[in-house]
Parts: sequence; C-alpha cells; structure tokens
Amino acid sequence: MSTPIKYAVFGSGSWATAIVKMLCENLDEVGWYMRSVYIKEHLLKEQHNPSYLSSVEFKTSQLKISNDINEMATYADVLIFVIPSAFIHDELLKLEVDFKDKIIVSAVKGIMPETGKLVGEHFHDIYGVSYDNIAVISGPCHAEEVALERLSYLTIACADETKAAQIAKALASSYIKTSTSDDVIGIEYAVMLKNIYAIAAGIAHGLGYGDNFQSVLMSNAIREMKRFIKKRHKMKRNINDSAYLGDLLVTGYSLFSRNRMFGNMIGKGYTVKSAQMEMNMVAEGYYATKSAYDLIEKDERKGKLPIITATYAILYEGKDPKRTFQKLTEKLD
Amino acid sequence: MSTPIKYAVFGSGSWATAIVKMLCENLDEVGWYMRSVYIKEHLLKEQHNPSYLSSVEFKTSQLKISNDINEMATYADVLIFVIPSAFIHDELLKLEVDFKDKIIVSAVKGIMPETGKLVGEHFHDIYGVSYDNIAVISGPCHAEEVALERLSYLTIACADETKAAQIAKALASSYIKTSTSDDVIGIEYAVMLKNIYAIAAGIAHGLGYGDNFQSVLMSNAIREMKRFIKKRHKMKRNINDSAYLGDLLVTGYSLFSRNRMFGNMIGKGYTVKSAQMEMNMVAEGYYATKSAYDLIEKDERKGKLPIITATYAILYEGKDPKRTFQKLTEKLD
Repeated sequence: MSTPIKYAVFGSGSWATAIVKMLCENLDEVGWYMRSVYIKEHLLKEQHNPSYLSSVEFKTSQLKISNDINEMATYADVLIFVIPSAFIHDELLKLEVDFKDKIIVSAVKGIMPETGKLVGEHFHDIYGVSYDNIAVISGPCHAEEVALERLSYLTIACADETKAAQIAKALASSYIKTSTSDDVIGIEYAVMLKNIYAIAAGIAHGLGYGDNFQSVLMSNAIREMKRFIKKRHKMKRNINDSAYLGDLLVTGYSLFSRNRMFGNMIGKGYTVKSAQMEMNMVAEGYYATKSAYDLIEKDERKGKLPIITATYAILYEGKDPKRTFQKLTEKLD
Repeated sequence: MSTPIKYAVFGSGSWATAIVKMLCENLDEVGWYMRSVYIKEHLLKEQHNPSYLSSVEFKTSQLKISNDINEMATYADVLIFVIPSAFIHDELLKLEVDFKDKIIVSAVKGIMPETGKLVGEHFHDIYGVSYDNIAVISGPCHAEEVALERLSYLTIACADETKAAQIAKALASSYIKTSTSDDVIGIEYAVMLKNIYAIAAGIAHGLGYGDNFQSVLMSNAIREMKRFIKKRHKMKRNINDSAYLGDLLVTGYSLFSRNRMFGNMIGKGYTVKSAQMEMNMVAEGYYATKSAYDLIEKDERKGKLPIITATYAILYEGKDPKRTFQKLTEKLD
C-alpha cells in the first residue's frame, strides 16, 4: 500500500480556509500552516477560524495545524499557497526545504510585488522546482459561497495534466466541480487581471456610471485580458472559459469584492491612501495594477490595454478619476 | 437642399420611449406610432409617456404622434420597430404601404412566434424590402438608464454600413455612444438568446444557486451563444463585443430584468402560468425559448446547447426545474 499524498494549505484568510474545507471532504488529514498563533489556538479550541468563514466548523482531529512554515513544507507533498501577494515574498524567505519532489500550487491572486514574479516562477527560480510540478487553482469562486456549500466550479491548471487531475480530485465534492487545464501562466495572469478590472468597475460605479456601462466595461475587459495574455503566453485557449471570463464576472459583478469596493471609494473621491486606511487593508488589485502595468510594453501603451492604463494612471499617477474615465469611455466600444 | 430623412418609432414601451428620446436629441421632428389612444392623448397633454419612463419629458412640438400605423409608415423614411415580439405580427398585418425605398430597423427582442421570422425577414419576404435596407439596433442598454442619461453604448447593424452609420448618427448624443456592424442576423439572434439566458439565470437564483454558479452559467452561455449563431450565420465576429457579450451581461445580471424575474419565480416553484399571471405579462424570453428551440437541429440536441435545452424542458415540457438544473450543472464547466 502506498502512503497517501499529503496536502497542506499555507495561509489563513478566507480563500485558504475554503480550500482547507474542500480538502477535508476527501482527505483523512490536511496540513494547515498559518503565521498567527492566535488563529491556531482558536481553531484548535473552537473548531473554526476566528477571522474568516467562521461559520465553517472543522474536525480538528483531521487538521495538522502548524505555525512553522518549514515543518509544514517538510510534511506535505502538495503545497497550496494562499497568502496575499503583498505578504508572500517575505513568508517564503523563511523556507529552507528541499522541494525536488514536491508539487507547488498557487492560489495567490497576483504577482509578488517585490520581484514581479508569479509564485510558480519563484519556486522554479529559487528552489529549482520543475514546471511540471507547478500548478494553479482558479475560480470563479467566492470563498463565502464555499462556506455555504453552494455549487462552485474550480479549474486546476498544471503542465502535467495527470497532476492537475490528481489535485482536482482532492478538491472535488458534492458542491465543488473541477476542470483541468494546461494553461498555468494564462490563468495566473487572468487571476491577477480580474482584480484590476474589478477596481475599474468600482471606480465607474463610484463615478455614477450605471449597469449599461458596466456591461460594456466587462465586455471590453475580457477582450483586453485576451490581448494581454496572448502577448505574454501564446497558446490555444478559450478566453470565455470559466477560469478567465467566469472569474472576471464573479469578481467584477460582486458588490462584496474588496477590489470593487476600493475602486468605488476612489470613484467617489477618496484618495488612494484614505481609501486604504478606511478599508484597513490594501486590495490585491492595487498591487496587480502596478505589476501588470510594469509588464506592458511600449507598443501596448498605444491604447491596446486602455482599462489597465487608466486604472494605473488613477492609482499611481494621481490622475483625476472623472477625467480619466471620460477619456477611457472614448476608447471602449 | 435635400429634405431631411424622417425617422419614426413604432411602439410605446420603455425601449421605444428611450429610442424616441435619443432621436429627439438630434432631429427636429420624430414620428411616433402607438396603438393606444390613451398614451397618445396623455403624451400630448402631459409631455410624457404615462406608462413607461414617465420621468422623460418630451417637447411635443418635436413629436409627430399617430395611432395610424399606415400614416406613420408613409411619413417615415426610417421605420424603427420596437413592439414586443408577441404582438408585432398582428400589428404588421395592418400595413399597406410601399416599402421599396424605406429602411426597416428592428429593435424587437426576438422572433415573431407565429412565423419564426425575424422582423427584417418578415419585411423582406412580405414587402420585398432589400436586405441592404434592413438594420437592427442592439444594446447593452436598459431603457431606464437612457431616461437617466447614463452613458450607454449601442450597436447598429446593417449590411450597408453607410446606412448603419447614418442611423447611428441619429441616435448618438452626449450619453449615447454608437458602433456599427454588418452582422444583422447574428445580432438579432444574440438579442433573442440573451433573454433565454436571463431566464436561466433567474431559475438558478430561484433554486438557490449563488454568484459562483451565475458566473459559470454566463461563461457557458456566451460559448453556447457563439455556437448557436455560428451554425446559423457563419461570419467573422467577436462574440465578446458589446452587442453580444455586453448585452448578455446587462440582462443576465439585472435584478430588474423581467426575464430574470420570470425565471426566478419558476425556480421558486411557480408554474409557468402562475408566474405569468403574477407578473401580469409574458417575458420575451418565454417566446424566445420556443423560437430558439424550434431552430435547433438534431445534432445540436446532443448537449451542444444545454442551457437552451434545459430552459425549454422546464418551460414547455413541464420538467422539474431542480432536477433539470442538476443535470445541467453536469454539462457546464
């Protein structure tokens, strides 16, 4: 009998908590690393995460919880990283483990702002993990609906589709349906870009644009996303698959998306700083906007990616949202 | 000096009223036909439509209102039909005018259920109007937002793009941006199909599916729409343009869409009859579902168009919504 493959989730936010819940439907034991000692103690005592998806009850006998990232990285065969892009770089500095035979899965929504690298790239470059051992999990999936066990679809991408299928199987349940893909890079970009478009949707809403414009914005956003990804990683993909279009829609239309909320405040006249202070956090899309803009090449600046460019101008160049969006509306169709 | 081209709108619902408002921004005189003597009298006395978009004030000196469809059809060079698909066939039976040099524009959201024909086809077949003189107006555009003068985008399609541009010019204003297209048939189908998908979205909502599933449903719907249209009218089109994807989104995500509301009641357990009685109207998508299903060919029944097929089964074959959607969820990805 072979030893069962061990999974561990790294992170304690709502998406991390949702993924632990999914794995608990299938596995006898799930590893769970979190930085916070308080969350660990609370989980063990009260059987739920005190800060996120607290309605989800865990059987703590099923969980292997640790505050030691190296202990957990040693334990697991499949490591699922679900740490906000702004914090992951520093977290990973602590790692001292041999990753030769391990599978790295990213459920991080963006690029590490410090290096401009995707999580998979980081493990490839720093630890020599082969691209066949790097995977990504993508929605469309609000963690809150996983807590409610509402039917949701995930896409798991890996260059090695057998591994993608293996991870998919560990996540699937009565309320989680899974597909696999080999477009790791395209899906990682899509996950990053959707948060920028959610900010743009929020700005539009804050400025008083309505539902008619929102639908035009999303229709242009998916075309822009297609161009952005194609330029960086050309392969056959259907941009209307759930992992791209579905994920854009679930975020862009969500009134609860932190990115959209942040954009809404900007549209209503808050400065970037005051919006961030008011929200007591920095929305993922804020970093994503800079990461994406830094990747844009000269010939793309000439109007090919107008939504990213406009969002960057507002968030990083202090441009007036109202005038910037007025100009943007001329470029959409 | 040439005589100005005369436009007339046929219909008195909210979309018809919105189109009259758009034309009034540009033209000295706008023809407006409606069946109801009451609405005509009220408009002339109170300067607004009593039943739809009643916040919109018209200068009645600018309007040429008539209850006589032949008088109005004789008057106008460009005839814009905005009558619900369920009523237009009988309305058009009254027409006795020579349409040789007139332009027929359809803003009808569907097919005439009596004949299975699009409005343009009807004029072509019955009155010999050339396809170069047949156009279509499409959103994404809620009439209510036109009333509020919120920025909206329209697409005007005509095989003769000069005519499309001419009509576009008559509709454009500070709050209406226009594009042109030559895909009359594809856009007419898109307008019809989106209402079916809005019903499906409503059913899902009524059954308790959440936002994650809604985004998967829309992502599958646009792929299904692409297949449906391509099979019937193959040409180069980007299904993610606003006239297709944008229009699907503005309807599918609208809580005010009558089609979505109708679907929601079905999902909650109302019968088709009782939902229609409760709403005091028949949603366009109800007819569209039958029209679309009647067009589906044998090889397409094998799961290529699962959302249309499921919606048809629920609305016309008395199938149980819950079980039908459970099966549908297996076919989506």
